Amino acid sequence: MRVINFNAGPAGLPLPALERARDEFIDFQGSGMSILEHSHRGKEYEGVHDEAIALLTRLLGIPDSHQVLFLQGGASLQFAMVPMNFLPPGGSADYVLTGVWSEKALDEAKVVGSPRVAGTSIGPDKRYARIPRQAELELDPKAAYVHVTSNNTIYGTQWHAWPEVGAVPLVADMSSDFLWRPTDVSRFAFIYAGAQKNLGPSGVTVVILRKDFMARGRKDLPKILKYSTFAENNSLYNTPPTFAIYLMRNVLSWIDKQGGLTGMEKRNTAKAELLYGALDRMAGFYKAPVERAARSTMNVVFRLPTEALDDEFVAAAKKARMVGLKGHRSAGGIRVSTYNAVSQEDVQALVSFMESFAKSKG
Amino acid sequence: MRVINFNAGPAGLPLPALERARDEFIDFQGSGMSILEHSHRGKEYEGVHDEAIALLTRLLGIPDSHQVLFLQGGASLQFAMVPMNFLPPGGSADYVLTGVWSEKALDEAKVVGSPRVAGTSIGPDKRYARIPRQAELELDPKAAYVHVTSNNTIYGTQWHAWPEVGAVPLVADMSSDFLWRPTDVSRFAFIYAGAQKNLGPSGVTVVILRKDFMARGRKDLPKILKYSTFAENNSLYNTPPTFAIYLMRNVLSWIDKQGGLTGMEKRNTAKAELLYGALDRMAGFYKAPVERAARSTMNVVFRLPTEALDDEFVAAAKKARMVGLKGHRSAGGIRVSTYNAVSQEDVQALVSFMESFAKSKG
Repeated sequence: MRVINFNAGPAGLPLPALERARDEFIDFQGSGMSILEHSHRGKEYEGVHDEAIALLTRLLGIPDSHQVLFLQGGASLQFAMVPMNFLPPGGSADYVLTGVWSEKALDEAKVVGSPRVAGTSIGPDKRYARIPRQAELELDPKAAYVHVTSNNTIYGTQWHAWPEVGAVPLVADMSSDFLWRPTDVSRFAFIYAGAQKNLGPSGVTVVILRKDFMARGRKDLPKILKYSTFAENNSLYNTPPTFAIYLMRNVLSWIDKQGGLTGMEKRNTAKAELLYGALDRMAGFYKAPVERAARSTMNVVFRLPTEALDDEFVAAAKKARMVGLKGHRSAGGIRVSTYNAVSQEDVQALVSFMESFAKSKG
Repeated sequence: MRVINFNAGPAGLPLPALERARDEFIDFQGSGMSILEHSHRGKEYEGVHDEAIALLTRLLGIPDSHQVLFLQGGASLQFAMVPMNFLPPGGSADYVLTGVWSEKALDEAKVVGSPRVAGTSIGPDKRYARIPRQAELELDPKAAYVHVTSNNTIYGTQWHAWPEVGAVPLVADMSSDFLWRPTDVSRFAFIYAGAQKNLGPSGVTVVILRKDFMARGRKDLPKILKYSTFAENNSLYNTPPTFAIYLMRNVLSWIDKQGGLTGMEKRNTAKAELLYGALDRMAGFYKAPVERAARSTMNVVFRLPTEALDDEFVAAAKKARMVGLKGHRSAGGIRVSTYNAVSQEDVQALVSFMESFAKSKG
């Protein structure tokens, strides 16, 4: 019996995508071997690889100006590769800080060059409970790029309107909300996302970059650290993480069948309304610290009246087969991650549990 | 019905390791979710992670002086990370060339610093059909390290005795013969291996490095490109490729049950004797170009009298459910990859096929 999985990542995956993988795990499409055992240069794997790219392109409406790449190393490797490729010696890049992950991206850029903090929403309590307003950003028109983190898993905040950055290339870490709804890719010079939230298992990173931006990349880097190497070889320069890409393909195909990104937006908005509605209704018991306009549709954070009650809540939920609710160790409290694979019914089950828990304590 | 898989990598995996993964794919150990969906910070995944490290440590007898790390990016990322970490500005490192993969490692080092070629076995025909003798190596006692490729998949050669390098740290790319037999890890400052040959699926790279060598690594690199970052966090600095590590654990556990690395050596030696014995017996038809002393136990290459016969051989073998026999596109001919998962019976089936094929043409 499957549990209800509110993990922050690696996260729950759609059951049909997993079942498809299980059913053909030993014998992929009658080939007599697992997809894991196929050469990355053979037609079976290449079919999967190209289908994953085609599905992403169609779901997001990626224009010809941009290219999809599959890399390894997670978003953490992108924190380093982006400045290595695009922050020229003596130049600057703008980073907007909205949480720990943007801080980490900034720290790696500092090793490479001279990034600037163009805005931050850190509060006096060192927490990030909101997203900076446009007027709060001090953008450098000469910056090599502006870097934002579209959703902040630990603090439960999300950009709901992209910043205006003029002609400066916009770079976004979308690891934790990629594909949650339709996105105008043409606004971005560079998007990256580790797969392990909305997209698949850990071990593959999707990059979507504008080709003319890519052309500005430094030439004097090791081949494996240049985006052009991946672009010129359809992400097959070296052996890609074939099974992770295969499973991502299964998830993308599932998203497609759910009505694509419009379907995902409807699903995710309904889930968020249900959960935030419950928090607002029970505001005497559950405290949601995030500014309303910045509430994340992917990670909903709140606290109970005491830390002891937080712990009791997590333990009682686990008994009711709901897992992954403990807040990040740096933030405490409760975190409900409601990525694409989490259903309305899952959230309804949690809300009912929250109601009876609050009642039992009230 | 499973085929006999002689793929060069990603390669065939032991069926019990795959079946174990399939059987618990949707529900890992009664946890109600897939191992793919577990947090990398939870006890279920951490149990797998630590067991993989423990199995590697026990199978190889890794001494306390060394540490096991799991990275992403394949051997190709190591081609860059090794010189980035260990080739100091103004210093030199020695590379021994035995094939395309060592050339690639050298090329990445050239971007970072000033490596030297300390030996090569390239022939006048630009092919590498042997391994350099000790006397042919011109080693620099001041080199930061000596880099070798232990087995050469394309040319079918393998180091059967390690070079004497004095006090200089020895670095080996063992991607294509890691765990084929017992190895004295203490001879090496640094071993790396992409998993997709003897070890598991693509998407995880094993690194074993001497701690005092690691301490010499440059400090001014992005965090994600420093080995110390992985070492300090038990390879959990960022989300690891959890499923790839899980499946590697299954393969390691299978190796353990086959009598460990002594069992693997027996198995692999018997397979190589069977196959090279057949080639020698039928030397009038099949031409094995590799110098006897350098013959690889992992990749056996040969040619038929004509290229047309090579193609016919591959096609006929495929009909007999034996796949992966086409030589690398740069080398042509036939390549039989007989990694750990390939059984004596698989090789016997191929030898019988080779006998009747030769007969039918003679």
